Amino acid sequence: MSSDAKCNRVGDDTFVAVNELAKRRGFFWSSFEIYGGSGGFVTYGPLGARLKQNIETKLREVMVKKIGIYEIESSVIVPGKIFEASGHVAHFKEPMVECQNCHTRFRADHLLEEKGISSAEAEKMSLEEVKVELQRHNIICPDCKGAFGEPTRYLTMFETTIGPYAGSVGYGRPEAAQNIFVEFNRLYNVARERLPFGCINIGKALRNEISPRQGLIRLREFTIADLEFFFDPEEPTCDRIGEVENEVLPILLGDTRLKDCEDITNFTVREALDKGIIRSEWQAYFMAQAKLLLIELGVPSDNQRFIEKLTWEKAHYSSQSFDQEVLVNRWGWVEVSGHAYRTDYDLTCHMKASGADMTVYKEYANPVETEALIVKPIMSKLGPVYKDEAGKVAAALTKVPAQQVADALAKTGSIIVEGYQIFKEQVDVCKQKTTVRGKRFVPHVVEPSFGCDRLFYVALEYAYSLNDDRIVLKFPRSIAPIQIGVYPLMSKDGLDTKAKEIQRVLSCEGFMTDFDEAGSIGRRYARADEAGIPIGITIDHDTLSEETVTIRDRNTWKQIRVVVKDLPNLLHKYFEGKADFEELGQIIP
Amino acid sequence: MSSDAKCNRVGDDTFVAVNELAKRRGFFWSSFEIYGGSGGFVTYGPLGARLKQNIETKLREVMVKKIGIYEIESSVIVPGKIFEASGHVAHFKEPMVECQNCHTRFRADHLLEEKGISSAEAEKMSLEEVKVELQRHNIICPDCKGAFGEPTRYLTMFETTIGPYAGSVGYGRPEAAQNIFVEFNRLYNVARERLPFGCINIGKALRNEISPRQGLIRLREFTIADLEFFFDPEEPTCDRIGEVENEVLPILLGDTRLKDCEDITNFTVREALDKGIIRSEWQAYFMAQAKLLLIELGVPSDNQRFIEKLTWEKAHYSSQSFDQEVLVNRWGWVEVSGHAYRTDYDLTCHMKASGADMTVYKEYANPVETEALIVKPIMSKLGPVYKDEAGKVAAALTKVPAQQVADALAKTGSIIVEGYQIFKEQVDVCKQKTTVRGKRFVPHVVEPSFGCDRLFYVALEYAYSLNDDRIVLKFPRSIAPIQIGVYPLMSKDGLDTKAKEIQRVLSCEGFMTDFDEAGSIGRRYARADEAGIPIGITIDHDTLSEETVTIRDRNTWKQIRVVVKDLPNLLHKYFEGKADFEELGQIIP
Repeated sequence: MSSDAKCNRVGDDTFVAVNELAKRRGFFWSSFEIYGGSGGFVTYGPLGARLKQNIETKLREVMVKKIGIYEIESSVIVPGKIFEASGHVAHFKEPMVECQNCHTRFRADHLLEEKGISSAEAEKMSLEEVKVELQRHNIICPDCKGAFGEPTRYLTMFETTIGPYAGSVGYGRPEAAQNIFVEFNRLYNVARERLPFGCINIGKALRNEISPRQGLIRLREFTIADLEFFFDPEEPTCDRIGEVENEVLPILLGDTRLKDCEDITNFTVREALDKGIIRSEWQAYFMAQAKLLLIELGVPSDNQRFIEKLTWEKAHYSSQSFDQEVLVNRWGWVEVSGHAYRTDYDLTCHMKASGADMTVYKEYANPVETEALIVKPIMSKLGPVYKDEAGKVAAALTKVPAQQVADALAKTGSIIVEGYQIFKEQVDVCKQKTTVRGKRFVPHVVEPSFGCDRLFYVALEYAYSLNDDRIVLKFPRSIAPIQIGVYPLMSKDGLDTKAKEIQRVLSCEGFMTDFDEAGSIGRRYARADEAGIPIGITIDHDTLSEETVTIRDRNTWKQIRVVVKDLPNLLHKYFEGKADFEELGQIIP
Repeated sequence: MSSDAKCNRVGDDTFVAVNELAKRRGFFWSSFEIYGGSGGFVTYGPLGARLKQNIETKLREVMVKKIGIYEIESSVIVPGKIFEASGHVAHFKEPMVECQNCHTRFRADHLLEEKGISSAEAEKMSLEEVKVELQRHNIICPDCKGAFGEPTRYLTMFETTIGPYAGSVGYGRPEAAQNIFVEFNRLYNVARERLPFGCINIGKALRNEISPRQGLIRLREFTIADLEFFFDPEEPTCDRIGEVENEVLPILLGDTRLKDCEDITNFTVREALDKGIIRSEWQAYFMAQAKLLLIELGVPSDNQRFIEKLTWEKAHYSSQSFDQEVLVNRWGWVEVSGHAYRTDYDLTCHMKASGADMTVYKEYANPVETEALIVKPIMSKLGPVYKDEAGKVAAALTKVPAQQVADALAKTGSIIVEGYQIFKEQVDVCKQKTTVRGKRFVPHVVEPSFGCDRLFYVALEYAYSLNDDRIVLKFPRSIAPIQIGVYPLMSKDGLDTKAKEIQRVLSCEGFMTDFDEAGSIGRRYARADEAGIPIGITIDHDTLSEETVTIRDRNTWKQIRVVVKDLPNLLHKYFEGKADFEELGQIIP
């Protein structure tokens, strides 16, 4: 791990510069500014919307196209009973305090964190402890210096009513995982009733934060990508683990954290599994994929870590959790994905609450022979005694567990069932052989869950750089919002017409292009560098006579001259990662 | 127009079959089934989520990549004051009646429509008229036959609270257009302060329907694609109109509708503009693009029409509106996109409500010389009379329009302003020349708006067909959810390994693939046809010895034999529409 890399990133300069650029060039900004704004909502402008889509496409390319995970799209508004069953209505709350003077409300744990109390500590505090700590640190209202009232717990879900009936509560989903769990039976059917399989759900989620103040890092409305991978806990092997076995995962272990230390230990995936650091192969597999994804978004491995969650930090459903964190300016280490082993918690909750059977059937390789005790009422003996009621008596008897019947008869010679006394000689208790061919069980789940807005933010911050004091966004070419800029050297002599023709051809080839004819070519290159456009094509007088253009590399500002008709082929190669810029032609000295 | 095409589509069979298939194969189903469901919410399963994305991608390819429209991504939860300003809080209501016996609530206009009253008529009725019509048709509760109470108007927006303060109302947006309007200033800045430009916003929208019962056609949560195109009303020319001038638009004119007739008139885009049928060139341009889009989704022109909205059917903001409709089974003609000329209505509303200036400045080609009347109080004359109050008197005078001052002085020799009588000789009224170099104005807007779930539904229904009694989904190849199926003839002899290797290569090339090794090859082809997979690749023993495979066309079931290493190239050509199946190789007789 390079500690230099880390140190350079913590400070305020890059954060401010990135946000200023984002607003000026239209990557993103706070929504509803003309109405005074509303905290926790952002609008992604033209460049931002493209960048965000490209990141989500990359996630799909890995998870859906390559690994074969299913994808669903489901609703943001969810009936209340689902979040009651999942535990959210009871647990999805944050400690809140209100200033008794200006009546502004704050998240109490965030106020404590500003005084150096770790979020891990703040999270496990009772309301009484929160109150004591607020007093001990003399924490007063940051806005008006007023005193705080009693801390309370605030449900951070958006609540609404579904349809015209007042009682029909709905919530804005705070995550997209429950939409997968409640549809498990349909998905298992689509999977033709075979495990393992996974399902990803990428979409909007809502958390009604008390006072969000961290830009893209903490939003009231954000995009989540929840992936639930279902498997048989008795067959936990990941058949793709070989792909990532030698990937190094930088882990901050729970034990290390308990020593108040932040040292990272590097394990290969294989080592982490062999040493029991990560308990599920599929979880380790997705952690490795998450690391690789972040590298593809421009975050080097050295600036990533996986932090093991401590017992009291884990969600109520999780047996083992790691957060993938990236080092960013101003905020330090920020979570970009969570990796939880959710066991059978969620499916079991929904089975109980809904009454639906969500178990799956597994046939044993070798059927198991078992002997079971069975109870048979002897009707020829019960009939004469009970007459018309004999059937009822027999039925009552079969409801009692066979072992209980056998024990009672052995001990007292009779058993009383629903008011009837039944004697030993009226019943046949015997052992019978049965062949059990399989069993039903509830699948286990590992969940990688990505915050897409945070992926966006880290991609933007890591792309931010300066060449000769000029801002250049060095996005990896596969996520650049605009791929190609097209520039006629002048807006006359037919250069603009020729340039538009070239742009049209490239658009039809599927490239995302931009046309810019305003100002000097130098100013246009500068604007393109700020927007992170990897390739610039300049059309000049030689283009008209020789059918050649200059193409320019954003990162190095190097240029090469190529034949117009070769452009689509060369640029496909370049953007598919099959050739680097230097391989496209002869660099102009 | 082929009326045959129409007639074949109205009935119930295809609707039922499509919905059954959708559920069985996982295109979509009603959400939350294990909890008894909740009307108006659907989950798109693996095949459906892909299809829907492909349709949205196509929309982006046309609008964003080809035409150069900006895209933003913005929030579903919107502060209440924005929908107050836009008129939604006042107008976004539907007539509702409640059964006095079972207390179920219904949309009154839908009940009337079931009795043959057109939606156009029902929409313009007052509550009193609704009541009269319900009684006249003896309409009772369809569930329990109870009598209805008084009709009321119900706000069909989801309401919630933003943050921890009770007064802070937010709504789930019922459309995505307002998110564009309120960000106009930022977007105009991104456009480097030049008109025209457009902005599309594709995302979830919410309408809290009273009792949605039409599957994908009427949802509480759905995906909308609102495109707002901003232009100078004095320069309304569309510079791309040449691309679509000769496209034929099948239009059901408002005048025809007033005669209770449904005859369609075909106009080319040029004719429709020349005859004043469509009043904005940009609106006509987007209507033509919408027609072409639907053709690309598999809906022939004959099964599309544009219906002109009548005065009382138009939204409160619209100066001219057309709905694009597609003929579908069971529901008849269904709206898939709306095309409204919104003028400067929305920007003006938000200017008034927010106080922000959303005008743009336009420099005249030739500055205009004007003479303006101006009023100058003569302080040397006012001073001696009014002493300390002289300044106040002068200020009061300048608030009165100059012409009014001049008229009063000419007529009576004095003017009384705020209680002060001011005489002719205390004022200098004169004309002054000024050069006006430009003016500020509010841009006009045309809006094409697409319902993505309806685009999805029509694409699915139009793909549905039978070959030899077997279901084949004949999706256009560019939107098929899975592009290529890979099938080892047997799961042994290394055929499965080879097949997986081929699948991996194709996945890396960016294709969406499926691997299926279960059951006979015939059953696998049948499953693939039902999922609408255009191309199947079969790996057999000759593949191992000769490096060739059979590829099969879903639509014709024809097969050709090709060399493995040619697959990526051939399939790229095929899916980019550069070659048809027959051109990929020699058909096996």
